[in-house]
Amino acid sequence: MSELTIWTYDWVPPGPRGLVRDLRLRWACEEADLAYQMRTVPFDGRETNHLADQPFGQVPFLKDGAVEIFESGAGLLHLARRSDTLMPRDPAGAAQTEQWVIAALNSIEMVTVPWWFLKMTGQADNGLTGWMTGRLTHMERVLGERDWLVGGRFTVADLLMADVLRVPDVRAFGDRPATEAYVARVTGRAAFIKARAEQVAAFEAADQARG
Amino acid sequence: MSELTIWTYDWVPPGPRGLVRDLRLRWACEEADLAYQMRTVPFDGRETNHLADQPFGQVPFLKDGAVEIFESGAGLLHLARRSDTLMPRDPAGAAQTEQWVIAALNSIEMVTVPWWFLKMTGQADNGLTGWMTGRLTHMERVLGERDWLVGGRFTVADLLMADVLRVPDVRAFGDRPATEAYVARVTGRAAFIKARAEQVAAFEAADQARG
Repeated sequence: MSELTIWTYDWVPPGPRGLVRDLRLRWACEEADLAYQMRTVPFDGRETNHLADQPFGQVPFLKDGAVEIFESGAGLLHLARRSDTLMPRDPAGAAQTEQWVIAALNSIEMVTVPWWFLKMTGQADNGLTGWMTGRLTHMERVLGERDWLVGGRFTVADLLMADVLRVPDVRAFGDRPATEAYVARVTGRAAFIKARAEQVAAFEAADQARG
Repeated sequence: MSELTIWTYDWVPPGPRGLVRDLRLRWACEEADLAYQMRTVPFDGRETNHLADQPFGQVPFLKDGAVEIFESGAGLLHLARRSDTLMPRDPAGAAQTEQWVIAALNSIEMVTVPWWFLKMTGQADNGLTGWMTGRLTHMERVLGERDWLVGGRFTVADLLMADVLRVPDVRAFGDRPATEAYVARVTGRAAFIKARAEQVAAFEAADQARG
């Protein structure tokens, strides 16, 4: 029997603990009650030590039988097809779920991650701030009209969108009550809390091994 | 009989002609020989005039029977499931295609578009240049090892990756012969040339209507 396996780093510094993207896949597996095992690649030398599995030197990547996938977004879509807990089965609902997964990656994260990257390198007020504010305003409107992105229920689109929106301080871009309530609602789920705790615990345990 | 319909703007200024993302969907339909019709929303007032169809005020979006999708990446995945010209049918090949579609959107375009955005606003040498150079170097290595991203044949992953890579001047980040050859190979396809010409012609024709 093939087993679903997810790879992450063997260790990361305290800063990114709870944020490394294997969390997205752990979380999806917990939501869908899919059995999985974790394996690791070394954090040291990550730029080149696993390029055959992840061509940008990042994590996560997964293997599930004959299927091998890097990109957390693609891994989420793969897992979603294994469980209707994560994605409705009707074509219109599935398409809407996929659409909001892509929106999280390409309309929101395409702005929030570079904005955050510039902030981390000392440019908190940078050339992306106006664009960022506009996108967050659009999402605030969307989330003010519904509790879940698709079909009145939790889907993998909410998992990803909330994971994207929990990183920046959205309040810094204006009052965002619907967005804050949405992030709190989605990240308050037991599956997120368990997945996050297990990622943090694994990295903390690795502190010992590094001595 | 339902008809596949793609929406774009009724007009855009000369600068973005040939770059508006309905081109991705036109191109995919041409590759797969899928019948489609084009419709438009007004460019003027685009920030608010079609938010029910595209919550960020952008284009394209499509309708195909009961399926309604915004996000060009999600539209491409939908079209790819209608034709094995665009995506292999075996699970491993389909997963690889989906993975590279997401990589184009979230590992490459997430850097190239913000970099380009900063450049357009007068910051050609900006805080994303190092990240951009690294990602393009990884893609150069990948494309030096194969002609097509998945399965030794053209897929929708090549369509999207080439469309992403044709926008920035990759040569400005160092010698990139494999990337340049790849973009030339993919955008040399008859379906791209036809789709691009038709988009440009439609926007040029709209100049007359605006007077």
